[in-house]
Amino acid sequence: MIQFWCRLFLVCFALGLTGKVGAQQPSVIFTDARRLTLTGKAWNSQPFYHRLDTAAYPAIPANVKRLATNSAGLAISFKTNSTRILARWCTSSHAPSGNMTGIAYEGMDLYIQRDNRWQYAGVASPKSHTCSEATIVEHMASGDKTCLLFLPTYDETLSLEIGIDSSASISPADNPFKKNILIYGSSITQGASASRPGLAYPARLSRETGYNFINLGFSGSGKMEPEVADMIAPLAMDAYILDCLPNPSPAEILARMSNLIHTIRRFHPQVPIIVIQTVAREKGTFDQQVAAVVALKDLYSNQEIKKLQEQDKHLYLIRADGLLGHDQEGTTDGIHPNDLGFDRMLQTIRPAILSILSRYGI
Amino acid sequence: MIQFWCRLFLVCFALGLTGKVGAQQPSVIFTDARRLTLTGKAWNSQPFYHRLDTAAYPAIPANVKRLATNSAGLAISFKTNSTRILARWCTSSHAPSGNMTGIAYEGMDLYIQRDNRWQYAGVASPKSHTCSEATIVEHMASGDKTCLLFLPTYDETLSLEIGIDSSASISPADNPFKKNILIYGSSITQGASASRPGLAYPARLSRETGYNFINLGFSGSGKMEPEVADMIAPLAMDAYILDCLPNPSPAEILARMSNLIHTIRRFHPQVPIIVIQTVAREKGTFDQQVAAVVALKDLYSNQEIKKLQEQDKHLYLIRADGLLGHDQEGTTDGIHPNDLGFDRMLQTIRPAILSILSRYGI
Repeated sequence: MIQFWCRLFLVCFALGLTGKVGAQQPSVIFTDARRLTLTGKAWNSQPFYHRLDTAAYPAIPANVKRLATNSAGLAISFKTNSTRILARWCTSSHAPSGNMTGIAYEGMDLYIQRDNRWQYAGVASPKSHTCSEATIVEHMASGDKTCLLFLPTYDETLSLEIGIDSSASISPADNPFKKNILIYGSSITQGASASRPGLAYPARLSRETGYNFINLGFSGSGKMEPEVADMIAPLAMDAYILDCLPNPSPAEILARMSNLIHTIRRFHPQVPIIVIQTVAREKGTFDQQVAAVVALKDLYSNQEIKKLQEQDKHLYLIRADGLLGHDQEGTTDGIHPNDLGFDRMLQTIRPAILSILSRYGI
Repeated sequence: MIQFWCRLFLVCFALGLTGKVGAQQPSVIFTDARRLTLTGKAWNSQPFYHRLDTAAYPAIPANVKRLATNSAGLAISFKTNSTRILARWCTSSHAPSGNMTGIAYEGMDLYIQRDNRWQYAGVASPKSHTCSEATIVEHMASGDKTCLLFLPTYDETLSLEIGIDSSASISPADNPFKKNILIYGSSITQGASASRPGLAYPARLSRETGYNFINLGFSGSGKMEPEVADMIAPLAMDAYILDCLPNPSPAEILARMSNLIHTIRRFHPQVPIIVIQTVAREKGTFDQQVAAVVALKDLYSNQEIKKLQEQDKHLYLIRADGLLGHDQEGTTDGIHPNDLGFDRMLQTIRPAILSILSRYGI
């Protein structure tokens, strides 16, 4: 009997909602996202959706400048009581490379606070490589919602408007994340090959820990140049994570690593600096050249870190062996973790990072 | 001292290999993959890279016919002693939707037998939406290798040539998988949103268990039509897995499910038939309409299965609650599992399927 009523309720509910969809939905109003709260940015600079103002740093390499225009790690924090949320946005005309989804590269994903955590709510899937409009989520219960919309990880966001029911309201929310922890890194930090922007590991770290992990991943270009060291060292950070080792050559590691760490240290005598060994190693399962280069990078970076640790008790190393698992199924292409690889990586680095931060009262 | 020699060896090895790359590599010869062994196909039919010959089944829906041309689950099995493997291939001009990578949609991935298992070796990443050439893996040790190259999951493979060192040889290998287990399903079965073809869950099941899981996933079109039931029921299968429930409406489940199972049963009185509840449920976290439809599908499919199980002791149901985890991070878009979701799903369905098969001496 209970089953009968349960079934009747479900049928009525499903049909009722389907009926509503068939009927005219209330009209939508769009709000320029620049009127809301931007999180995940290290500088309070223009252009709004660039991670940094490259004009302020003329000496940094051209590739870093180009990649700094990608909105990796940036998110819009807002509140609304709308029952649906849409996006209308434009990016550059670039298209994803083979190892990324369009949603991750030039789309967005939305999370809503419920039960004291961020829960996935929907994606804005791109319809073209320039401008798109998408319904992210609909048919939600009425009531206030605190939302976080992660922006494209690999493209330049040129404009973004967020759509809600015309009868609803939208307003900026507080930045939900405390402290500032900069992650300087490679394509892996920037978000390749997470399947949606919010699954890039710095974004997952922020949502899961409540800390403001700032994504300064530069695809293929996290090479520790002195000009980049000079740029990131003066920032008001509570901790630095250096996950850049996939990009420099072994010789560049020897030439640049100690300078990067010394430069940060000059501005921050006591903040934790956490180095992560290169996780880009599965391409070396059969490719002996890749395996040898990775081994040499490990050797040089371990050696440099060991030398520096003799003078610096706030410098840490997270080793990468087994960080993506042992079955070689944790990457998209032997280099870039897929969502499985990122999940495995987080199971090790999240407690390691939290343990280090707790020693500093962060 | 040991460290010094170790370092010297690594430097020499890395430089030596780099030197080799700088030098002229031996030329490459290409072999038409149709001369090698094709696995994962239910019919021994033409066209070679189509999953079935749609001309032989004029009554099946147009969308199923179109999707049957996609090479999901097909793989080329071969042996070679080459130190590198390349691919030169053409697909249709279609481009991936936002929830898939190019590698999964129209690219390939290679696995090589080592230590008694299939180990990831490299990807063929598409350079265009039509024809591409890619080095999948290079700088391998010499010696014989048994290889398995998974074909594009969402595109039609028009041609494929496999490249090896001109001094090496290539030959067909045996089909490495035993028995035949058909998985009839939706986009999720077809491979969305695995990051590379071999991470689609039927392909992982084959590699990990040694059984020949045959991918008959039809994106959005696994709707259990009587014409499809008539097509798949007479096949010489040792087991059937029905993972199609994401696609039919609740009413279609009521109208078609028992016919599908009865039709298979007429040809196979005693083979196990395993139904998987719809895993496409995370879009319903906030979307109440999706949640209600999924609940109704569960209710109807459970009810149908229960009724059928009273007469059929070889019919099984795998429930989907929690199959992708409980954090809502296991999909790309709330519907399609990402590699993390597929991994979690496999942790439950792999032992469940193996346990059922073992009861049948399969």
